[in-house]
Amino acid sequence: MRLSRYFLPVLKENPSEAQIVSHRYMLRAGMIKQSAAGIYSWLPLGFKVLKKIEGIVHEEQIRAGHVPMLMSTMQPADLWKESGRYDDYGQEMLRIKDRHDRDMLFGPTNEEMITDIFRAHVSSYKDLPLTLYQVQWKFRDEIRPRFGVMRGREFYMKDGYNFDLTKEDALHAYNRHLVSYLRTYERMGLQAIPMRADGGPIGGDYTHEFLVLAETGESEVFYDSAVTDLTFGDREIDYDSVEQCQGVLEEFTTKYARTDETHDEALFNEIPEDRRRTARGIEVGQIFYFGTKYSESMGAKVQTADGEVPVHMGSHGIGVSRLLGAIIEANHDDNGIIWPEGVTPFHCGIVNLKQGDEAADAACESLEKALAAVGLEALYDDRKERAGGKFATMDLIGLPWRITVGPRGLKNGVVELTSRRSGESEELTPEAAVAKLVEIYADHRTPQGF
Amino acid sequence: MRLSRYFLPVLKENPSEAQIVSHRYMLRAGMIKQSAAGIYSWLPLGFKVLKKIEGIVHEEQIRAGHVPMLMSTMQPADLWKESGRYDDYGQEMLRIKDRHDRDMLFGPTNEEMITDIFRAHVSSYKDLPLTLYQVQWKFRDEIRPRFGVMRGREFYMKDGYNFDLTKEDALHAYNRHLVSYLRTYERMGLQAIPMRADGGPIGGDYTHEFLVLAETGESEVFYDSAVTDLTFGDREIDYDSVEQCQGVLEEFTTKYARTDETHDEALFNEIPEDRRRTARGIEVGQIFYFGTKYSESMGAKVQTADGEVPVHMGSHGIGVSRLLGAIIEANHDDNGIIWPEGVTPFHCGIVNLKQGDEAADAACESLEKALAAVGLEALYDDRKERAGGKFATMDLIGLPWRITVGPRGLKNGVVELTSRRSGESEELTPEAAVAKLVEIYADHRTPQGF
Repeated sequence: MRLSRYFLPVLKENPSEAQIVSHRYMLRAGMIKQSAAGIYSWLPLGFKVLKKIEGIVHEEQIRAGHVPMLMSTMQPADLWKESGRYDDYGQEMLRIKDRHDRDMLFGPTNEEMITDIFRAHVSSYKDLPLTLYQVQWKFRDEIRPRFGVMRGREFYMKDGYNFDLTKEDALHAYNRHLVSYLRTYERMGLQAIPMRADGGPIGGDYTHEFLVLAETGESEVFYDSAVTDLTFGDREIDYDSVEQCQGVLEEFTTKYARTDETHDEALFNEIPEDRRRTARGIEVGQIFYFGTKYSESMGAKVQTADGEVPVHMGSHGIGVSRLLGAIIEANHDDNGIIWPEGVTPFHCGIVNLKQGDEAADAACESLEKALAAVGLEALYDDRKERAGGKFATMDLIGLPWRITVGPRGLKNGVVELTSRRSGESEELTPEAAVAKLVEIYADHRTPQGF
Repeated sequence: MRLSRYFLPVLKENPSEAQIVSHRYMLRAGMIKQSAAGIYSWLPLGFKVLKKIEGIVHEEQIRAGHVPMLMSTMQPADLWKESGRYDDYGQEMLRIKDRHDRDMLFGPTNEEMITDIFRAHVSSYKDLPLTLYQVQWKFRDEIRPRFGVMRGREFYMKDGYNFDLTKEDALHAYNRHLVSYLRTYERMGLQAIPMRADGGPIGGDYTHEFLVLAETGESEVFYDSAVTDLTFGDREIDYDSVEQCQGVLEEFTTKYARTDETHDEALFNEIPEDRRRTARGIEVGQIFYFGTKYSESMGAKVQTADGEVPVHMGSHGIGVSRLLGAIIEANHDDNGIIWPEGVTPFHCGIVNLKQGDEAADAACESLEKALAAVGLEALYDDRKERAGGKFATMDLIGLPWRITVGPRGLKNGVVELTSRRSGESEELTPEAAVAKLVEIYADHRTPQGF
């Protein structure tokens, strides 16, 4: 993509309304524009990252055997009256009357709706187990939206729901989600630590939150430093294996890691003192097992040899739009964002040091083409600007790799490949630079983000 | 995908609420479920087709040089007061008050919002031309929603907006959209005829609607039969070429083709009588040039050598969710849907005639794997059901190709490949069946739809 044909409205000044670094950089890098308090439009660069994150979420959910679908944003209030949550939910629910004066709402979550879909279509235990999920826009009318997409009102979320015959089966679904979430976050370059959480208004005995450590996190967290040494890595998992999923759960949740809501000082003090940590964390996901709470109140039952029984359910969420904020909070420096390779909007930037120079222009164009031919997308800064301005833009928008092309290097047959993270550069032939990027991205194959 | 692990709730009975065939088949094939009048959830099969259609739309928009982004569904009413459309829009606009009693709405279209984004960020003619687009959920509170997704209240739409310095440039953008839309619909297996349309409430001197001929269409259309002989085919277009785009526009719009809104009996009668046609059509897209209507009222201006001038704009829409209905209306028989290869949810079905037979099971599994290895996705009916029931399901859901595997054929080393459209079958080795499907789908490379 040529920058002259793209829409990347970067800001030179720090926007005064942004209190945290991710909000500031998302505005400055031209990723989002506020439509109203807590409601954002996604400008092209932000949209690309959003789609990359969504793509990883889809791939990992499908890998775990979960089935994608999509529920409407508008929901009839009747379903919520049935479950008893219509009155409970309070002012965070955006309530709407349509032209026929019927009570509707913009879905803040979908337990009622998915249970309604399930009960309408499934009546036999033979159709279980089943896990359905979606990635869809939701709305919570927060009283004080802030921190940009981290605590917005309209937000993009993956929510999945498992339906199982027994508690045991449902706990396997719970474990399967935990495993798939570990993979998901690691592909985004994040360490998200599962911490024992509080069931809250949704209910649930078994629940873990996934937290990314960051100074700007909204939750205080307490943990054994040994949990940060755990990585999922590239291990192969058979998601049908109860033992394997249970094993991963135990590995990742046995050591102490809790938010302030479930913190237990006595247990915490049992950790060797040099491993006790207190920090702040950003919640980027949560898994719940809540048993028959909705299936009983809404009549989601299946026929078995022993008669009709309510199904065991759980719900499992990943904050997709919020993840952009979390990733930036965990990956930035004073010059801007540093995207992990798995979610970067473009695989690399190309900076032409002398736009209009025939050799430099041709080299940039052929580099862009060579990268496209191997499935890598470059953002080519073809503007007639000074090199300093071009570098500052690339640093701000945070592409992890930059190729700098200038007449002087080309005379020696080389371009410069620079890592945004380390700042280190090396001179390479254009072909070698492409080959190196192919190697780097071999481990970060993310579905195309448009 | 194994059917036993999928969620495909097909209905045996015809649902009484469905008046037209596409609505009936979408319900029966387990593609959608109504949430409320005119509001649908997309079950896994429907979601897959929706994503395929969206993928084609994105690819063709990007090919034309248009830049994807995403606007929020919720909009502040203030923007619409500024353009003067807040009062005009009437009850079709879903008006909402948030918890702070601020006037909001669920966007029915986005001229105001995109103009606001443009004016906030663009001030120089050097940033033109620019075309931004999105595929996003929208809401129109139709008084009598009907015909399933064809006339729903919550609907998925691609809307694009061009910003140009002059009328001439904006008309090139108009033509570029016309060309890209022709390609887009053809990739979906549809012939959508551009017809001169009425500007309607949105305004605009230049506008064409794209109509798919179908008995159930909502518009009466009048045309020269010669327009149905035109196909875009695989011609290469340089979207920057004013001449090429203008040439395509002339080729496809010079012959008479109008809806009843713009029909001119005298002109129609100039067509040779044997080529005069009256039919019904489904509108699947519309392009508009409306000049400076919004840029003047909302102050979207750019600096030029001659001072500040309002930009010339147009808006261009494709009804993504509606297209599922239109495609089915144009592609079905008494047994069910017949998906065109470009949008089919799975590339082929695999029917195991004797589930539990070791050779048949193994052959089906290895076929599914062999297809996946070449990027083709199969739906493998692995249920213990009679062949007749399996065939009926495959016919209903409309996968264009089916491979039938049975112990008898396997003894001779063959399986059966059947075309859903022609009903013709041929016996082939499994390898040859895979090779034939690769060949068939070589011309229908649609981005993955999850």
